[in-house]
Amino acid sequence: MRVVSSINRVRQILKSARSNGTIAFVPTMGALHEGHLSLMKKAKAECDFLVVSLFVNPLQFGPTEDFKVYPRELASDRKKAHSAGADLLWIPSEKDLYPPGFQSTVTVSKISQPWEGIFRPDHFKGVSTIVAKLLQITRPDRLYLGQKDYQQSCVIRQMIRDLHFETQMRVCATCREKDGLAMSSRNARLSTKARENAAILYRALQAAKNQVRSGERDAKCIIQTVTSLLESIPGLKYDYVALCDIETLEPLERLADCAVLLAAIHIGRVRLIDNIRLKIPKK
Amino acid sequence: MRVVSSINRVRQILKSARSNGTIAFVPTMGALHEGHLSLMKKAKAECDFLVVSLFVNPLQFGPTEDFKVYPRELASDRKKAHSAGADLLWIPSEKDLYPPGFQSTVTVSKISQPWEGIFRPDHFKGVSTIVAKLLQITRPDRLYLGQKDYQQSCVIRQMIRDLHFETQMRVCATCREKDGLAMSSRNARLSTKARENAAILYRALQAAKNQVRSGERDAKCIIQTVTSLLESIPGLKYDYVALCDIETLEPLERLADCAVLLAAIHIGRVRLIDNIRLKIPKK
Repeated sequence: MRVVSSINRVRQILKSARSNGTIAFVPTMGALHEGHLSLMKKAKAECDFLVVSLFVNPLQFGPTEDFKVYPRELASDRKKAHSAGADLLWIPSEKDLYPPGFQSTVTVSKISQPWEGIFRPDHFKGVSTIVAKLLQITRPDRLYLGQKDYQQSCVIRQMIRDLHFETQMRVCATCREKDGLAMSSRNARLSTKARENAAILYRALQAAKNQVRSGERDAKCIIQTVTSLLESIPGLKYDYVALCDIETLEPLERLADCAVLLAAIHIGRVRLIDNIRLKIPKK
Repeated sequence: MRVVSSINRVRQILKSARSNGTIAFVPTMGALHEGHLSLMKKAKAECDFLVVSLFVNPLQFGPTEDFKVYPRELASDRKKAHSAGADLLWIPSEKDLYPPGFQSTVTVSKISQPWEGIFRPDHFKGVSTIVAKLLQITRPDRLYLGQKDYQQSCVIRQMIRDLHFETQMRVCATCREKDGLAMSSRNARLSTKARENAAILYRALQAAKNQVRSGERDAKCIIQTVTSLLESIPGLKYDYVALCDIETLEPLERLADCAVLLAAIHIGRVRLIDNIRLKIPKK
Protein backbone atom coordinates (compact mmCIF):
# COMPACT_ATOMS: atom_id res chain seq x y z
CA MET A 1 0.00 0.00 0.00
CA ARG A 2 1.35 3.39 -0.99
CA VAL A 3 0.68 6.37 1.27
CA VAL A 4 0.59 9.67 -0.60
CA SER A 5 -0.36 13.27 0.08
CA SER A 6 0.16 15.12 -3.23
CA ILE A 7 -2.78 15.50 -5.61
CA ASN A 8 -0.54 15.14 -8.63
CA ARG A 9 1.00 11.96 -7.32
CA VAL A 10 -2.46 10.50 -6.71
CA ARG A 11 -3.45 11.36 -10.27
CA GLN A 12 -0.30 9.75 -11.63
CA ILE A 13 -0.78 6.53 -9.67
CA LEU A 14 -4.46 6.31 -10.58
CA LYS A 15 -3.79 7.01 -14.25
CA SER A 16 -1.61 3.97 -14.40
CA ALA A 17 -4.04 1.92 -12.28
CA ARG A 18 -6.89 2.96 -14.57
CA SER A 19 -5.15 1.61 -17.61
CA ASN A 20 -4.86 -1.75 -15.85
CA GLY A 21 -8.36 -2.16 -14.49
CA THR A 22 -11.15 -0.68 -12.41
CA ILE A 23 -10.73 1.74 -9.52
CA ALA A 24 -12.71 1.70 -6.29
CA PHE A 25 -12.78 4.69 -3.96
CA VAL A 26 -13.62 4.82 -0.25
CA PRO A 27 -13.53 8.38 1.12
CA THR A 28 -13.11 8.55 4.91
CA MET A 29 -12.39 11.01 7.68
CA GLY A 30 -10.13 8.45 9.34
CA ALA A 31 -10.59 6.95 12.81
CA LEU A 32 -11.35 3.83 10.83
CA HIS A 33 -13.67 1.21 12.29
CA GLU A 34 -15.14 -2.06 11.06
CA GLY A 35 -17.71 -0.12 9.02
CA HIS A 36 -14.98 1.52 6.94
CA LEU A 37 -13.04 -1.73 6.66
CA SER A 38 -16.05 -3.64 5.41
CA LEU A 39 -16.53 -0.98 2.70
CA MET A 40 -12.89 -1.37 1.75
CA LYS A 41 -13.06 -5.16 1.61
CA LYS A 42 -16.16 -5.05 -0.54
CA ALA A 43 -14.59 -2.39 -2.78
CA LYS A 44 -11.40 -4.37 -3.19
CA ALA A 45 -13.34 -7.55 -3.95
CA GLU A 46 -15.25 -5.80 -6.73
CA CYS A 47 -12.50 -3.68 -8.31
CA ASP A 48 -8.85 -4.02 -9.26
CA PHE A 49 -7.42 -1.07 -7.38
CA LEU A 50 -8.61 0.48 -4.12
CA VAL A 51 -7.88 4.07 -3.18
CA VAL A 52 -8.87 5.23 0.29
CA SER A 53 -8.79 8.91 1.21
CA LEU A 54 -8.37 10.14 4.75
CA PHE A 55 -9.28 13.76 5.33
CA VAL A 56 -11.18 15.41 8.16
CA ASN A 57 -12.98 17.95 6.01
CA PRO A 58 -13.38 21.26 7.86
CA LEU A 59 -15.99 22.48 5.34
CA GLN A 60 -18.61 19.99 6.55
CA PHE A 61 -18.41 20.93 10.24
CA GLY A 62 -20.46 23.78 11.63
CA PRO A 63 -18.79 26.43 13.82
CA THR A 64 -20.09 24.82 17.04
CA GLU A 65 -19.48 21.23 15.92
CA ASP A 66 -16.80 18.69 16.77
CA PHE A 67 -14.14 19.34 14.11
CA LYS A 68 -11.41 19.91 16.69
CA VAL A 69 -12.21 16.86 18.79
CA TYR A 70 -13.02 14.56 15.88
CA PRO A 71 -10.85 11.48 16.52
CA ARG A 72 -7.53 11.33 14.60
CA GLU A 73 -5.63 8.04 14.66
CA LEU A 74 -3.29 8.13 11.72
CA ALA A 75 -0.90 5.35 12.69
CA SER A 76 -3.57 2.74 13.33
CA ASP A 77 -5.58 3.95 10.31
CA ARG A 78 -2.63 3.14 8.03
CA LYS A 79 -2.43 -0.40 9.39
CA LYS A 80 -6.17 -0.92 9.13
CA ALA A 81 -6.43 0.40 5.56
CA HIS A 82 -3.53 -1.79 4.54
CA SER A 83 -5.03 -4.87 6.13
CA ALA A 84 -8.37 -4.17 4.43
CA GLY A 85 -6.72 -4.22 1.01
CA ALA A 86 -6.17 -0.56 0.14
CA ASP A 87 -3.64 -0.11 -2.65
CA LEU A 88 -3.33 3.62 -2.12
CA LEU A 89 -3.97 5.62 1.03
CA TRP A 90 -4.35 9.27 0.12
CA ILE A 91 -3.95 11.75 2.96
CA PRO A 92 -4.40 15.15 1.32
CA SER A 93 -3.32 18.29 3.09
CA GLU A 94 -5.81 21.00 3.90
CA LYS A 95 -3.74 23.56 2.00
CA ASP A 96 -3.86 21.45 -1.18
CA LEU A 97 -7.64 21.03 -1.04
CA TYR A 98 -8.45 24.49 0.29
CA PRO A 99 -5.63 26.79 -0.82
CA PRO A 100 -5.81 30.53 -0.14
CA GLY A 101 -8.52 32.04 -2.32
CA PHE A 102 -10.55 28.83 -2.51
CA GLN A 103 -14.19 29.81 -3.03
CA SER A 104 -16.09 27.26 -5.11
CA THR A 105 -18.78 25.07 -3.63
CA VAL A 106 -21.22 22.47 -4.89
CA THR A 107 -24.77 22.66 -3.56
CA VAL A 108 -27.36 19.92 -3.99
CA SER A 109 -30.33 21.98 -3.02
CA LYS A 110 -33.48 20.00 -2.39
CA ILE A 111 -32.28 16.73 -0.94
CA SER A 112 -29.86 18.57 1.38
CA GLN A 113 -32.55 20.64 3.05
CA PRO A 114 -34.55 18.45 5.42
CA TRP A 115 -33.41 16.43 8.47
CA GLU A 116 -29.65 16.76 8.81
CA GLY A 117 -29.86 19.92 6.71
CA ILE A 118 -32.00 21.63 9.34
CA PHE A 119 -29.76 20.76 12.27
CA ARG A 120 -26.45 21.02 10.44
CA PRO A 121 -26.83 23.97 8.05
CA ASP A 122 -24.13 23.94 5.34
CA HIS A 123 -23.06 20.42 6.35
CA PHE A 124 -24.11 18.90 3.04
CA LYS A 125 -22.63 21.78 1.07
CA GLY A 126 -19.33 20.83 2.71
CA VAL A 127 -19.92 17.18 1.90
CA SER A 128 -20.92 17.64 -1.73
CA THR A 129 -18.05 20.05 -2.31
CA ILE A 130 -15.36 17.76 -0.88
CA VAL A 131 -16.78 14.69 -2.61
CA ALA A 132 -16.90 16.55 -5.93
CA LYS A 133 -13.25 17.49 -5.43
CA LEU A 134 -12.19 13.98 -4.43
CA LEU A 135 -14.11 12.40 -7.32
CA GLN A 136 -12.53 14.84 -9.78
CA ILE A 137 -9.08 13.88 -8.61
CA THR A 138 -9.58 10.12 -8.26
CA ARG A 139 -12.15 9.54 -11.06
CA PRO A 140 -13.08 6.12 -9.69
CA ASP A 141 -15.26 3.55 -11.41
CA ARG A 142 -17.02 2.92 -8.11
CA LEU A 143 -17.58 4.91 -4.97
CA TYR A 144 -18.38 3.04 -1.73
CA LEU A 145 -20.42 4.68 1.02
CA GLY A 146 -22.04 3.38 4.18
CA GLN A 147 -25.79 3.34 4.68
CA LYS A 148 -25.39 4.86 8.15
CA ASP A 149 -25.14 8.30 6.54
CA TYR A 150 -28.30 7.74 4.54
CA GLN A 151 -29.11 11.31 3.57
CA GLN A 152 -25.48 11.88 2.64
CA SER A 153 -25.66 9.00 0.19
CA CYS A 154 -28.81 10.54 -1.34
CA VAL A 155 -27.06 13.90 -1.70
CA ILE A 156 -24.02 12.36 -3.36
CA ARG A 157 -26.12 10.19 -5.68
CA GLN A 158 -27.95 13.30 -6.87
CA MET A 159 -24.70 15.24 -7.33
CA ILE A 160 -23.14 12.43 -9.35
CA ARG A 161 -26.18 12.43 -11.61
CA ASP A 162 -26.51 16.21 -11.95
CA LEU A 163 -22.83 16.94 -12.54
CA HIS A 164 -22.20 13.95 -14.80
CA PHE A 165 -19.58 12.14 -12.76
CA GLU A 166 -18.79 8.81 -14.39
CA THR A 167 -18.77 6.96 -11.11
CA GLN A 168 -21.11 4.23 -9.94
CA MET A 169 -22.18 4.49 -6.34
CA ARG A 170 -22.53 1.56 -3.94
CA VAL A 171 -24.19 2.00 -0.58
CA CYS A 172 -23.26 -0.78 1.83
CA ALA A 173 -25.11 -1.97 4.92
CA THR A 174 -24.34 -0.31 8.24
CA CYS A 175 -21.95 -2.26 10.49
CA ARG A 176 -23.13 -2.51 14.08
CA GLU A 177 -21.74 -3.28 17.49
CA LYS A 178 -23.12 -6.33 19.36
CA ASP A 179 -25.84 -4.25 21.00
CA GLY A 180 -26.86 -2.82 17.60
CA LEU A 181 -25.21 0.61 17.87
CA ALA A 182 -24.15 1.72 14.40
CA MET A 183 -20.38 1.92 14.14
CA SER A 184 -19.15 5.49 14.03
CA SER A 185 -15.88 7.22 14.74
CA ARG A 186 -17.85 9.40 17.12
CA ASN A 187 -18.73 6.42 19.36
CA ALA A 188 -15.21 6.64 20.81
CA ARG A 189 -16.21 9.92 22.39
CA LEU A 190 -19.07 8.39 24.43
CA SER A 191 -18.61 7.89 28.18
CA THR A 192 -19.18 4.35 29.50
CA LYS A 193 -22.68 5.24 30.63
CA ALA A 194 -23.54 7.11 27.42
CA ARG A 195 -22.18 4.24 25.35
CA GLU A 196 -24.51 1.88 27.19
CA ASN A 197 -27.48 4.20 26.70
CA ALA A 198 -26.67 4.81 23.03
CA ALA A 199 -27.92 1.31 22.18
CA ILE A 200 -31.45 2.66 22.59
CA LEU A 201 -31.22 4.28 19.14
CA TYR A 202 -31.09 1.01 17.24
CA ARG A 203 -33.48 -0.67 19.67
CA ALA A 204 -36.00 2.10 19.00
CA LEU A 205 -35.62 1.72 15.24
CA GLN A 206 -36.08 -2.05 15.61
CA ALA A 207 -39.20 -1.50 17.68
CA ALA A 208 -40.62 0.54 14.81
CA LYS A 209 -39.75 -2.23 12.40
CA ASN A 210 -41.57 -4.78 14.56
CA GLN A 211 -44.56 -2.50 14.76
CA VAL A 212 -44.68 -2.34 10.96
CA ARG A 213 -44.44 -6.12 10.85
CA SER A 214 -47.47 -6.23 13.14
CA GLY A 215 -49.42 -4.11 10.69
CA GLU A 216 -48.94 -0.47 11.72
CA ARG A 217 -48.86 1.87 8.71
CA ASP A 218 -49.41 5.30 10.24
CA ALA A 219 -46.23 7.39 10.28
CA LYS A 220 -47.18 9.28 13.45
CA CYS A 221 -47.66 6.03 15.39
CA ILE A 222 -44.41 4.57 14.11
CA ILE A 223 -42.48 7.72 14.96
CA GLN A 224 -44.18 7.86 18.37
CA THR A 225 -42.85 4.40 19.17
CA VAL A 226 -39.31 5.57 18.43
CA THR A 227 -39.51 8.87 20.29
CA SER A 228 -41.08 7.28 23.41
CA LEU A 229 -38.22 4.84 23.65
CA LEU A 230 -35.63 7.59 23.10
CA GLU A 231 -37.31 9.72 25.77
CA SER A 232 -37.03 6.85 28.26
CA ILE A 233 -33.29 7.58 28.52
CA PRO A 234 -32.56 10.47 30.90
CA GLY A 235 -30.61 13.26 29.25
CA LEU A 236 -31.08 11.94 25.72
CA LYS A 237 -32.33 14.52 23.21
CA TYR A 238 -33.30 13.90 19.63
CA ASP A 239 -33.09 16.30 16.69
CA TYR A 240 -35.57 14.40 14.55
CA VAL A 241 -37.19 11.05 13.94
CA ALA A 242 -38.62 10.87 10.42
CA LEU A 243 -40.32 8.33 8.21
CA CYS A 244 -39.40 9.24 4.63
CA ASP A 245 -39.52 8.31 1.00
CA ILE A 246 -36.34 6.35 0.32
CA GLU A 247 -35.32 8.57 -2.62
CA THR A 248 -36.70 12.07 -2.07
CA LEU A 249 -36.59 11.89 1.76
CA GLU A 250 -39.93 13.62 1.83
CA PRO A 251 -41.88 12.71 4.96
CA LEU A 252 -44.58 10.08 4.51
CA GLU A 253 -47.93 10.08 6.27
CA ARG A 254 -48.48 6.39 5.73
CA LEU A 255 -46.15 3.56 4.91
CA ALA A 256 -47.28 2.25 1.53
CA ASP A 257 -44.46 0.19 0.13
CA CYS A 258 -41.02 1.00 1.49
CA ALA A 259 -39.56 3.86 3.49
CA VAL A 260 -36.54 4.86 5.50
CA LEU A 261 -36.75 5.74 9.16
CA LEU A 262 -34.12 8.37 10.03
CA ALA A 263 -33.10 9.56 13.48
CA ALA A 264 -30.50 11.84 15.06
CA ILE A 265 -29.88 12.01 18.80
CA HIS A 266 -27.64 13.80 21.27
CA ILE A 267 -26.25 11.69 24.05
CA GLY A 268 -23.71 13.24 26.37
CA ARG A 269 -21.82 15.63 24.11
CA VAL A 270 -22.02 13.34 21.13
CA ARG A 271 -24.46 13.49 18.23
CA LEU A 272 -25.34 10.16 16.63
CA ILE A 273 -27.44 9.31 13.59
CA ASP A 274 -28.88 6.03 12.41
CA ASN A 275 -31.57 4.71 10.09
CA ILE A 276 -33.30 1.58 8.92
CA ARG A 277 -35.20 0.72 5.78
CA LEU A 278 -38.77 -0.38 6.31
CA LYS A 279 -40.57 -2.53 3.82
CA ILE A 280 -44.11 -3.80 3.98
CA PRO A 281 -43.91 -7.58 3.88
CA LYS A 282 -45.48 -9.03 0.72
CA LYS A 283 -48.65 -10.98 1.46
CA MET B 1 -17.81 17.56 -38.66
CA ARG B 2 -20.17 15.38 -36.67
CA VAL B 3 -23.28 16.94 -35.12
CA VAL B 4 -24.45 15.15 -32.00
CA SER B 5 -26.93 15.69 -29.19
CA SER B 6 -26.53 12.71 -26.84
CA ILE B 7 -24.16 13.04 -23.87
CA ASN B 8 -23.11 9.40 -24.17
CA ARG B 9 -22.31 9.79 -27.84
CA VAL B 10 -20.18 12.86 -27.10
CA ARG B 11 -18.29 10.91 -24.44
CA GLN B 12 -17.72 8.04 -26.85
CA ILE B 13 -16.42 10.24 -29.63
CA LEU B 14 -14.17 12.20 -27.26
CA LYS B 15 -12.83 9.05 -25.65
CA SER B 16 -11.54 7.93 -28.97
CA ALA B 17 -10.31 11.44 -29.88
CA ARG B 18 -8.50 11.64 -26.53
CA SER B 19 -6.54 8.51 -27.23
CA ASN B 20 -5.34 10.09 -30.49
CA GLY B 21 -4.38 13.56 -29.29
CA THR B 22 -5.44 16.70 -27.51
CA ILE B 23 -8.97 18.05 -27.24
CA ALA B 24 -9.98 21.70 -27.47
CA PHE B 25 -13.37 22.89 -26.30
CA VAL B 26 -15.27 26.04 -27.24
CA PRO B 27 -18.58 26.36 -25.37
CA THR B 28 -21.07 28.70 -27.07
CA MET B 29 -24.70 29.75 -26.90
CA GLY B 30 -24.82 29.75 -30.71
CA ALA B 31 -25.59 32.77 -32.92
CA LEU B 32 -21.96 32.39 -33.86
CA HIS B 33 -20.00 35.47 -34.93
CA GLU B 34 -16.39 36.17 -35.85
CA GLY B 35 -15.47 36.20 -32.16
CA HIS B 36 -16.56 32.58 -31.74
CA LEU B 37 -14.97 31.58 -35.03
CA SER B 38 -11.62 33.09 -34.10
CA LEU B 39 -11.71 31.09 -30.84
CA MET B 40 -12.42 27.95 -32.84
CA LYS B 41 -9.64 28.61 -35.33
CA LYS B 42 -7.15 29.22 -32.56
CA ALA B 43 -8.36 26.12 -30.69
CA LYS B 44 -8.11 23.94 -33.77
CA ALA B 45 -4.63 25.27 -34.54
CA GLU B 46 -3.42 24.36 -31.06
CA CYS B 47 -5.16 21.00 -30.51
CA ASP B 48 -5.89 17.87 -32.50
CA PHE B 49 -9.65 17.72 -32.03
CA LEU B 50 -12.12 20.56 -31.61
CA VAL B 51 -15.46 20.14 -29.90
CA VAL B 52 -17.89 23.07 -29.94
CA SER B 53 -21.01 23.06 -27.80
CA LEU B 54 -24.09 25.06 -28.65
CA PHE B 55 -26.55 25.50 -25.83
CA VAL B 56 -28.54 28.53 -24.73
CA ASN B 57 -28.31 27.85 -21.02
CA PRO B 58 -31.52 28.87 -19.25
CA LEU B 59 -29.81 28.72 -15.84
CA GLN B 60 -27.68 31.78 -16.54
CA PHE B 61 -30.55 34.07 -17.52
CA GLY B 62 -32.47 36.01 -14.90
CA PRO B 63 -36.29 35.94 -14.92
CA THR B 64 -36.49 39.36 -16.62
CA GLU B 65 -33.61 38.76 -19.02
CA ASP B 66 -33.46 37.91 -22.72
CA PHE B 67 -33.49 34.09 -22.70
CA LYS B 68 -36.53 33.91 -24.98
CA VAL B 69 -35.29 36.44 -27.51
CA TYR B 70 -31.65 35.35 -27.45
CA PRO B 71 -30.79 34.79 -31.13
CA ARG B 72 -30.98 31.18 -32.39
CA GLU B 73 -29.53 30.45 -35.82
CA LEU B 74 -28.88 26.75 -35.90
CA ALA B 75 -28.53 26.22 -39.65
CA SER B 76 -25.94 28.94 -40.18
CA ASP B 77 -24.18 28.02 -36.91
CA ARG B 78 -23.55 24.51 -38.25
CA LYS B 79 -21.96 25.90 -41.40
CA LYS B 80 -19.86 28.39 -39.49
CA ALA B 81 -18.59 25.86 -36.94
CA HIS B 82 -17.72 23.47 -39.73
CA SER B 83 -15.84 26.13 -41.69
CA ALA B 84 -13.94 27.15 -38.54
CA GLY B 85 -12.62 23.62 -38.12
CA ALA B 86 -14.89 22.03 -35.52
CA ASP B 87 -14.67 18.25 -35.53
CA LEU B 88 -17.70 17.80 -33.31
CA LEU B 89 -20.65 20.13 -32.84
CA TRP B 90 -22.48 19.16 -29.69
CA ILE B 91 -26.05 20.46 -29.36
CA PRO B 92 -27.26 19.07 -26.04
CA SER B 93 -30.93 19.03 -25.20
CA GLU B 94 -32.25 20.89 -22.19
CA LYS B 95 -33.78 17.70 -20.80
CA ASP B 96 -30.42 15.89 -20.91
CA LEU B 97 -28.62 18.68 -19.06
CA TYR B 98 -31.45 19.61 -16.71
CA PRO B 99 -33.59 16.51 -16.29
CA PRO B 100 -36.52 16.49 -13.85
CA GLY B 101 -35.15 16.58 -10.30
CA PHE B 102 -31.95 18.40 -11.29
CA GLN B 103 -30.79 20.41 -8.25
CA SER B 104 -26.99 20.67 -8.10
CA THR B 105 -25.20 23.94 -8.67
CA VAL B 106 -21.63 25.19 -8.55
CA THR B 107 -21.04 28.55 -6.90
CA VAL B 108 -17.80 30.50 -7.13
CA SER B 109 -18.54 32.90 -4.36
CA LYS B 110 -16.20 35.85 -4.16
CA ILE B 111 -15.28 36.57 -7.76
CA SER B 112 -18.93 36.21 -8.83
CA GLN B 113 -20.20 38.91 -6.50
CA PRO B 114 -19.21 42.33 -7.84
CA TRP B 115 -20.06 44.02 -11.19
CA GLU B 116 -22.09 41.57 -13.28
CA GLY B 117 -22.96 39.72 -10.08
CA ILE B 118 -24.77 42.77 -8.72
CA PHE B 119 -26.82 43.41 -11.85
CA ARG B 120 -27.34 39.79 -12.84
CA PRO B 121 -27.85 37.89 -9.60
CA ASP B 122 -27.39 34.13 -10.06
CA HIS B 123 -25.99 34.66 -13.55
CA PHE B 124 -22.56 33.32 -12.64
CA LYS B 125 -24.04 30.45 -10.67
CA GLY B 126 -25.72 29.46 -13.93
CA VAL B 127 -22.46 29.91 -15.81
CA SER B 128 -20.24 27.97 -13.40
CA THR B 129 -22.80 25.19 -13.16
CA ILE B 130 -23.18 24.70 -16.91
CA VAL B 131 -19.44 24.98 -17.53
CA ALA B 132 -18.73 22.43 -14.77
CA LYS B 133 -21.23 20.09 -16.45
CA LEU B 134 -19.82 20.63 -19.94
CA LEU B 135 -16.23 20.18 -18.74
CA GLN B 136 -17.16 16.98 -16.92
CA ILE B 137 -18.63 15.56 -20.09
CA THR B 138 -16.00 16.77 -22.57
CA ARG B 139 -12.88 16.68 -20.33
CA PRO B 140 -10.91 18.84 -22.76
CA ASP B 141 -7.21 19.59 -22.57
CA ARG B 142 -7.94 23.20 -23.34
CA LEU B 143 -10.92 25.47 -22.93
CA TYR B 144 -11.16 28.60 -25.09
CA LEU B 145 -13.03 31.68 -23.90
CA GLY B 146 -13.26 35.25 -25.17
CA GLN B 147 -11.95 38.20 -23.21
CA LYS B 148 -15.20 40.10 -23.82
CA ASP B 149 -16.77 38.23 -20.90
CA TYR B 150 -13.89 39.13 -18.63
CA GLN B 151 -15.47 38.42 -15.26
CA GLN B 152 -16.86 35.16 -16.59
CA SER B 153 -13.34 34.03 -17.49
CA CYS B 154 -12.20 34.89 -13.93
CA VAL B 155 -15.08 32.88 -12.46
CA ILE B 156 -14.32 29.86 -14.62
CA ARG B 157 -10.59 30.04 -13.96
CA GLN B 158 -11.27 29.97 -10.22
CA MET B 159 -13.72 27.08 -10.56
CA ILE B 160 -11.25 25.04 -12.61
CA ARG B 161 -8.66 25.57 -9.91
CA ASP B 162 -10.95 24.94 -6.93
CA LEU B 163 -12.67 21.86 -8.31
CA HIS B 164 -9.54 20.33 -9.85
CA PHE B 165 -10.57 20.22 -13.48
CA GLU B 166 -7.64 19.07 -15.59
CA THR B 167 -8.28 21.68 -18.25
CA GLN B 168 -6.06 24.56 -19.29
CA MET B 169 -7.87 27.78 -19.96
CA ARG B 170 -7.09 30.18 -22.79
CA VAL B 171 -8.64 33.63 -22.91
CA CYS B 172 -8.49 35.13 -26.40
CA ALA B 173 -8.67 38.77 -27.44
CA THR B 174 -12.08 40.29 -28.10
CA CYS B 175 -13.02 40.53 -31.78
CA ARG B 176 -14.45 43.89 -32.76
CA GLU B 177 -16.47 45.46 -35.53
CA LYS B 178 -14.87 48.21 -37.61
CA ASP B 179 -16.11 50.90 -35.24
CA GLY B 180 -14.72 49.00 -32.25
CA LEU B 181 -17.94 47.49 -30.93
CA ALA B 182 -17.15 44.14 -29.33
CA MET B 183 -18.73 41.31 -31.29
CA SER B 184 -21.67 39.80 -29.46
CA SER B 185 -24.66 37.74 -30.45
CA ARG B 186 -26.74 40.40 -28.76
CA ASN B 187 -25.61 43.08 -31.24
CA ALA B 188 -28.07 41.61 -33.74
CA ARG B 189 -30.87 42.89 -31.52
CA LEU B 190 -29.77 46.54 -31.76
CA SER B 191 -31.78 48.94 -33.93
CA THR B 192 -29.84 50.84 -36.63
CA LYS B 193 -29.63 53.90 -34.43
CA ALA B 194 -28.72 51.97 -31.30
CA ARG B 195 -26.10 50.01 -33.25
CA GLU B 196 -24.52 53.31 -34.30
CA ASN B 197 -24.61 54.65 -30.75
CA ALA B 198 -23.24 51.43 -29.27
CA ALA B 199 -19.79 52.27 -30.63
CA ILE B 200 -19.48 54.78 -27.80
CA LEU B 201 -18.70 51.95 -25.38
CA TYR B 202 -15.39 51.04 -26.95
CA ARG B 203 -14.60 54.68 -27.74
CA ALA B 204 -15.07 55.52 -24.06
CA LEU B 205 -12.79 52.67 -22.98
CA GLN B 206 -10.18 53.86 -25.50
CA ALA B 207 -10.43 57.40 -24.16
CA ALA B 208 -9.60 56.04 -20.71
CA LYS B 209 -6.63 54.19 -22.15
CA ASN B 210 -5.34 57.38 -23.77
CA GLN B 211 -5.79 59.23 -20.50
CA VAL B 212 -3.65 56.61 -18.75
CA ARG B 213 -1.03 56.98 -21.48
CA SER B 214 -1.02 60.70 -20.74
CA GLY B 215 -0.24 60.01 -17.11
CA GLU B 216 -3.57 59.79 -15.29
CA ARG B 217 -3.49 57.24 -12.43
CA ASP B 218 -6.53 58.15 -10.36
CA ALA B 219 -9.37 55.63 -10.77
CA LYS B 220 -12.12 58.19 -10.20
CA CYS B 221 -10.79 60.41 -13.00
CA ILE B 222 -10.40 57.52 -15.40
CA ILE B 223 -13.91 56.26 -14.66
CA GLN B 224 -15.25 59.80 -14.99
CA THR B 225 -13.89 60.00 -18.52
CA VAL B 226 -15.77 56.84 -19.45
CA THR B 227 -19.05 57.76 -17.80
CA SER B 228 -19.10 61.29 -19.29
CA LEU B 229 -18.75 59.85 -22.76
CA LEU B 230 -21.44 57.25 -22.12
CA GLU B 231 -23.76 59.91 -20.76
CA SER B 232 -23.31 61.94 -23.96
CA ILE B 233 -25.56 59.41 -25.74
CA PRO B 234 -29.26 60.10 -25.13
CA GLY B 235 -31.07 57.13 -23.60
CA LEU B 236 -27.91 55.19 -22.80
CA LYS B 237 -27.71 53.88 -19.23
CA TYR B 238 -24.81 52.14 -17.64
CA ASP B 239 -24.87 49.55 -14.86
CA TYR B 240 -21.26 50.08 -13.85
CA VAL B 241 -17.87 51.33 -15.00
CA ALA B 242 -15.11 49.89 -12.85
CA LEU B 243 -11.34 49.91 -12.70
CA CYS B 244 -10.27 46.65 -11.12
CA ASP B 245 -7.47 44.33 -10.20
CA ILE B 246 -7.06 41.97 -13.15
CA GLU B 247 -7.34 38.84 -10.99
CA THR B 248 -9.49 39.60 -7.96
CA LEU B 249 -11.64 42.22 -9.75
CA GLU B 250 -11.48 44.32 -6.60
CA PRO B 251 -11.83 48.04 -7.40
CA LEU B 252 -8.59 49.99 -7.48
CA GLU B 253 -8.20 53.54 -6.24
CA ARG B 254 -5.09 54.15 -8.26
CA LEU B 255 -3.61 52.44 -11.26
CA ALA B 256 -0.27 51.03 -10.11
CA ASP B 257 0.77 48.43 -12.64
CA CYS B 258 -2.03 46.89 -14.64
CA ALA B 259 -5.79 46.83 -14.33
CA VAL B 260 -8.93 45.97 -16.20
CA LEU B 261 -11.59 48.54 -16.99
CA LEU B 262 -15.03 46.91 -17.04
CA ALA B 263 -18.30 48.41 -18.23
CA ALA B 264 -21.90 47.36 -18.79
CA ILE B 265 -24.46 49.50 -20.59
CA HIS B 266 -28.08 49.38 -21.68
CA ILE B 267 -28.81 50.71 -25.12
CA GLY B 268 -32.31 50.32 -26.46
CA ARG B 269 -33.47 47.05 -24.95
CA VAL B 270 -30.06 45.47 -25.22
CA ARG B 271 -27.47 45.10 -22.50
CA LEU B 272 -23.84 45.14 -23.65
CA ILE B 273 -20.58 44.60 -21.77
CA ASP B 274 -17.00 45.31 -22.72
CA ASN B 275 -13.60 45.77 -21.12
CA ILE B 276 -10.02 46.66 -21.82
CA ARG B 277 -6.80 45.90 -20.02
CA LEU B 278 -4.82 48.93 -18.92
CA LYS B 279 -1.10 48.79 -18.34
CA ILE B 280 1.18 51.55 -17.23
CA PRO B 281 3.78 51.98 -19.95
CA LYS B 282 7.31 51.08 -18.79
CA LYS B 283 9.54 54.14 -18.63
